[in-house]
Amino acid sequence: MASLGEHYLIEYYDCNPHILDNLQAIEDILLKAAQKSGATILNNYLHKFSPQGVSGVVIIAESHIAIHTWPENRYAAVDFFTCGSRVDPLKAYEYIKEKLESAYTFYIKQERGIKEELQNASGQSSV
Amino acid sequence: MASLGEHYLIEYYDCNPHILDNLQAIEDILLKAAQKSGATILNNYLHKFSPQGVSGVVIIAESHIAIHTWPENRYAAVDFFTCGSRVDPLKAYEYIKEKLESAYTFYIKQERGIKEELQNASGQSSV
Repeated sequence: MASLGEHYLIEYYDCNPHILDNLQAIEDILLKAAQKSGATILNNYLHKFSPQGVSGVVIIAESHIAIHTWPENRYAAVDFFTCGSRVDPLKAYEYIKEKLESAYTFYIKQERGIKEELQNASGQSSV
Repeated sequence: MASLGEHYLIEYYDCNPHILDNLQAIEDILLKAAQKSGATILNNYLHKFSPQGVSGVVIIAESHIAIHTWPENRYAAVDFFTCGSRVDPLKAYEYIKEKLESAYTFYIKQERGIKEELQNASGQSSV
């Protein structure tokens, strides 16, 4: 592992807007996505906005999954931060894509806590 | 605005490990950082890991701020997702840097919900 964690920033375009605006549906999708990835769920919190949109976060032992939806734009932003090799964020990615009925999606993966930077910062020869 | 939201991924290296392992300190820092940025706090949740490390999320009306700390590596990963122009994530960035006593930090900013992609996905000429 070249870093302590991996952070997936996932864009879901052209989704079903009714699902994006349904708090219970979003909660179910997030929790099931966390389970499918192999994550250990610690807690979750969701909020329904007026007139529309949902925000939700699932805290997992391996970091977090968050979602923010814009039903009026048929769009949802998800990020999945994970550490360790036991969790597979791409299983969550595929599951959420299917459940939001997203016709167009992509993600970027960002390494977090890069080991070379940790070494440089601490001035140690190894971490 | 060229996108619906902005997502700052912030790396804090060479921090004070005692602060990184103190749940109450991390909670105070996150909440104050959210206030300083101008965000509206909806809820927050923190978790202390054994033997060390803290995860925390603040849900704000403008999206979220999350932190995950590795005291053993003197490292913390923060991400700040915001939408709208009222919130200034860089005020939170500077405040957290000072409070974690980070000697080396940087961030990347990722646009989320890119308007050109929203147009392409929907097939509309404007959004």
